[in-house]
Amino acid sequence: MHLDKKSIQDLDKIERLNLINSVTGVKPANLIGSHSEDGHSNLAIFSSVIHLGSNPALIGFNVRPSDEVRRDTYENIMATGFYTINHVHNSFIQQAHYTSAKFDREESEFEKCGLTAEWMEGFPAPYVKESRLKLGMRFVRAIPIDLNDTALIIGTVEHIYLPDEAFEKGGHLNLEALGDTGISGLNSYYSLKKMDQFPYARPHELPDFNK
Amino acid sequence: MHLDKKSIQDLDKIERLNLINSVTGVKPANLIGSHSEDGHSNLAIFSSVIHLGSNPALIGFNVRPSDEVRRDTYENIMATGFYTINHVHNSFIQQAHYTSAKFDREESEFEKCGLTAEWMEGFPAPYVKESRLKLGMRFVRAIPIDLNDTALIIGTVEHIYLPDEAFEKGGHLNLEALGDTGISGLNSYYSLKKMDQFPYARPHELPDFNK
Repeated sequence: MHLDKKSIQDLDKIERLNLINSVTGVKPANLIGSHSEDGHSNLAIFSSVIHLGSNPALIGFNVRPSDEVRRDTYENIMATGFYTINHVHNSFIQQAHYTSAKFDREESEFEKCGLTAEWMEGFPAPYVKESRLKLGMRFVRAIPIDLNDTALIIGTVEHIYLPDEAFEKGGHLNLEALGDTGISGLNSYYSLKKMDQFPYARPHELPDFNK
Repeated sequence: MHLDKKSIQDLDKIERLNLINSVTGVKPANLIGSHSEDGHSNLAIFSSVIHLGSNPALIGFNVRPSDEVRRDTYENIMATGFYTINHVHNSFIQQAHYTSAKFDREESEFEKCGLTAEWMEGFPAPYVKESRLKLGMRFVRAIPIDLNDTALIIGTVEHIYLPDEAFEKGGHLNLEALGDTGISGLNSYYSLKKMDQFPYARPHELPDFNK
């Protein structure tokens, strides 16, 4: 099957939306927690969280400021400067998915979706208690992508909470042991099975792929 | 286990690199194919490919222009304006991983790693024959992220090749059926198992999570 630019544009709108949201491959499932200045907690699922650098530890995610569902997250981060990123696990994918519904601004997705807001060590944004790996983030910069009116929201990692047993030798995280979830498109959820781990690739240690 | 900003900075350099490369959750495994103006094909694995928008179909990936391994990809795209994005499957994760080795510029990662360059319909960058889902991309813009000397390379989707059976009703892709691979950190590879697919979330159709 081959789709060129014209046949992509000619797809039904929903088909195009689902296809283009899927063609990059598996995406991480994360819940972003935030708090408004007037005291409302917000929680929303994002599949666009991306590693940008390790020193300093920088993480980004893409948001459409005009997106009604996720505007609360964006506005809270701009107002308070803090947010949390919480891994979604296979045990609560449905709760996580439904945080994407357009609730009223004063309704908390935590309550509506059966997840628990957790406040830790004075950090000004709520974590998700059910998540075993959570990050406390400080906002650094929003980089506008004017091509389609989205923005890359960049923050630094201030806190990492994780179970001891998920932190393996050398700093590797075992995402299967964490029960982590992958997303395809806007609504398909995948579990992960670790297949292999390879050493840092050096040309003189190359396996013989051409035998 | 709790790491604050100071304990993250105090980690051994390799531990910090691996941990921060892992904390965003699962990442997609993609091979980016490009071609230099003087006729050398290049192939490199990237875990930072991200969906940015569906109409127009925009896809980005993060690259450190000073990264010796992936500089060829960056320079080829800047010079020619075209590249391919090819899904990695579970059947060739080791070949894909070793494209990250620092080969000489005139050496082709295709040959070295036992993968096959495929030229289709006059497109000026090589696809990976072994990949069942591949995208022909046209470069649009590089957005510098001066916080850490990286750039977000943005392109539009010109071609999509995929097996008929992976394109499900409504435009959803089945990544398990494709045999797609996820990455954690820099060197751990995961297979995917589809758990569930939920409808578009509407507040009045919310399951009862609080019973």
